[in-house]
Amino acid sequence: MTNGENRKRHRVAIVGAGFGGLNVAKELRGDEAIEVTLIDRQNHHVFQPLLYQVATASLAPGSVAMPVRSILSKQKNANVIFGSVEAVDPEGQLLRLADGREVAYDSLVLACGAESFYFGNDHWAAHATGLKSLDDALEIRERILLTFEAAERESDPLERAKLLTFVVIGAGPTGVEMAGAISELGRQVLADDFANIAPKDVRVVLVEMAPRVLTPFDEDLSYAAQSQLEELGVELKLGWRVSDVREREVTIQKDEVEEHLHSSVTIWASGVRANPLIESAGLATDRRGRALVDMQCRAQGHENIYVIGDAAAFEDRKHGMLPGLAPVAIQQGKHLAKVLREARRGGIGPEFSYFDKGIMATVGRSRAIVQGGVKLTGFLAWLAWGLVHILFLIGFRNRAIVTFNWFWSYLTYQRGARLITGRVAPSDPNASPEERAAVRDNVHEKSTSI
Amino acid sequence: MTNGENRKRHRVAIVGAGFGGLNVAKELRGDEAIEVTLIDRQNHHVFQPLLYQVATASLAPGSVAMPVRSILSKQKNANVIFGSVEAVDPEGQLLRLADGREVAYDSLVLACGAESFYFGNDHWAAHATGLKSLDDALEIRERILLTFEAAERESDPLERAKLLTFVVIGAGPTGVEMAGAISELGRQVLADDFANIAPKDVRVVLVEMAPRVLTPFDEDLSYAAQSQLEELGVELKLGWRVSDVREREVTIQKDEVEEHLHSSVTIWASGVRANPLIESAGLATDRRGRALVDMQCRAQGHENIYVIGDAAAFEDRKHGMLPGLAPVAIQQGKHLAKVLREARRGGIGPEFSYFDKGIMATVGRSRAIVQGGVKLTGFLAWLAWGLVHILFLIGFRNRAIVTFNWFWSYLTYQRGARLITGRVAPSDPNASPEERAAVRDNVHEKSTSI
Repeated sequence: MTNGENRKRHRVAIVGAGFGGLNVAKELRGDEAIEVTLIDRQNHHVFQPLLYQVATASLAPGSVAMPVRSILSKQKNANVIFGSVEAVDPEGQLLRLADGREVAYDSLVLACGAESFYFGNDHWAAHATGLKSLDDALEIRERILLTFEAAERESDPLERAKLLTFVVIGAGPTGVEMAGAISELGRQVLADDFANIAPKDVRVVLVEMAPRVLTPFDEDLSYAAQSQLEELGVELKLGWRVSDVREREVTIQKDEVEEHLHSSVTIWASGVRANPLIESAGLATDRRGRALVDMQCRAQGHENIYVIGDAAAFEDRKHGMLPGLAPVAIQQGKHLAKVLREARRGGIGPEFSYFDKGIMATVGRSRAIVQGGVKLTGFLAWLAWGLVHILFLIGFRNRAIVTFNWFWSYLTYQRGARLITGRVAPSDPNASPEERAAVRDNVHEKSTSI
Repeated sequence: MTNGENRKRHRVAIVGAGFGGLNVAKELRGDEAIEVTLIDRQNHHVFQPLLYQVATASLAPGSVAMPVRSILSKQKNANVIFGSVEAVDPEGQLLRLADGREVAYDSLVLACGAESFYFGNDHWAAHATGLKSLDDALEIRERILLTFEAAERESDPLERAKLLTFVVIGAGPTGVEMAGAISELGRQVLADDFANIAPKDVRVVLVEMAPRVLTPFDEDLSYAAQSQLEELGVELKLGWRVSDVREREVTIQKDEVEEHLHSSVTIWASGVRANPLIESAGLATDRRGRALVDMQCRAQGHENIYVIGDAAAFEDRKHGMLPGLAPVAIQQGKHLAKVLREARRGGIGPEFSYFDKGIMATVGRSRAIVQGGVKLTGFLAWLAWGLVHILFLIGFRNRAIVTFNWFWSYLTYQRGARLITGRVAPSDPNASPEERAAVRDNVHEKSTSI
């Protein structure tokens, strides 16, 4: 990793190529005194805010992702490592990768994000998929599409209705977006193409412990979003707590009442916690596993370890504890470049403060809420939401293709990415990944079915 | 499948939603005397001529595929079954599906296509992937991209050169297109993004038994394509026979000379044979498993079983045995609708004759050959190739997106679909599909690596 020429340069290792990590790397461009090494276990940066559109067949995976190498290919002071960090050695100033490689650093930036958190019920994970990566999104997409195929084959109307029930747990932005998008996909797109499925057969249940959806928003906007969801046919279960998640079943509770919901596909959009690497690195954390950091984003008790984005618990002077949002990670990433330059000279960089431009969430076609300098709901809010998301997408090509796809879907109600791939025989929508792989590997089996 | 109202209608079952089957179904639109059931084991029609661009990260899978249900959603006399045909019962006039369902028919159309044929060496299939489905294409794409990542990690230049060797077997259109596209991807796109890989490190070997590439073309065009391939850095092994294919190794022979080629990714673009369903249905076949058919595309000895496209051996009065090309399947599909209408009335439909508009193949950016009324090579041929392929793509949306992607790639040399998904730790590019699935299913393992 190091050679003679580089040894005098300040080595900055960045773990994670999300919004935070990528912005640190890009902002350090042109600084010949610094050598950047960006490590990610994926070969691509994912634009997480649009992941739910991949999961609901609106966008192709490639439209919300960009190879990390090509983002940084023109940046001379940056290397990209496609690898999985297994351990941090703060004393040795060393990262250990799963394949045995080691990366030495002078400053370390942990921008490794968050993951789904099941509040101590990790066995729920097998039945309630989170939405954190392209793989998650593709898995959900395949399961939704297979469910419709299974329902089409089902002759008993009661069984069919059961099959067409989808449960989304958690009514934050991701949960609201997923619930709205599944309902739209099912009622407005798929029901049309399936002879035995009517729009009203599709049941999407959104379960939330709080008494309203989208709690970070003001109450009036929250209620606007609720009406928008109900217009799309989403069933709201507010004030209900999830007490169990099993294969195709979600149990919810409110006071003494317990309800068992059949669920063909269960989406987990509830708790998150920081990537466990933070804890395993020995950093001080809050109860969500996020690193406690100072105003320079430095991990408590460490001079040269910085944590930003969803992996950090940053207490802002004005806004309090910062939420896990893209703008926070982006601003921290850009700011950190200044701090690192100062640190290289032996100084302490400027303090970070968050500039809150507002928050927004979309519910579906022509439906969204925006809360910033102004409050917006409905079509205008939806346009604003679309514009902001297009502007923040990386790469002109992705921007153009996503814009075109949205425009097209808006006009035609069609979806561009309704593909079921990597499957066994369609007779078995519950085939295990092993079975699927077996079929793919066996040319004989493959050839005997059409 | 049947109900009272339908029982008097002539039931046409079509197996396969490729070019042939889809065109039969579409051409029968509006004929209320006929009930069409189209069965495919995939939920999408694939535009096979552009599959190689998915395999080489130029196009997203969704751009060359379209859900069968949405193609036929407005057609009242058509049903779509997403299922796998296991057996044909000509006496009972019945199809049996893998999930136990049965489909009764009055007329049967087998448009089930072809598959890779390893000339009796079926064990080669595990090491040399054919290019017949989206899954094949995505598997090849992932293996190519992982190979570049592995090469980037390799410090020994000799080992690195070995890793960057790709072998394509068979120099028909698919083989030529794959070889050209892998070389372009490696030398012009990826080499730029990887610090340790130079364009000249990428070695693509195209092995062909015949003395020249693209033998269906005239010799001068064939030689033009050969120069184009060599310009792109493809190494031609003409007149060489493949004698063995193993994991990461291809053995080739010419006279008494034997050569062992290391191969990180081996592509099989050589033999094909008809889908085995043809043989298992008890139809008379040629040595490639294709059904012998008469001038109405009827299987020998069967009044009501028709076979079209790659699954049929059709001897044209003017052109002799027809090749396995999209235009043949499309024309036969459209023609068959007339034959079926006539058959319903108890008559015998018109004879099929192929209208040959010419053939074309592309080698890469600005490089192609066309042989029809005129002969073209180079940039003009490439434009013609692009235009024809855009026009035949199904769906305006796909046309627009593919056009835009090509235009963009032409200007920027970028690729839009360079995603590695569904993987284990990057330390192990050879992880089995089972291992990959295991990781996907296990939130813990996933969460401990970045």
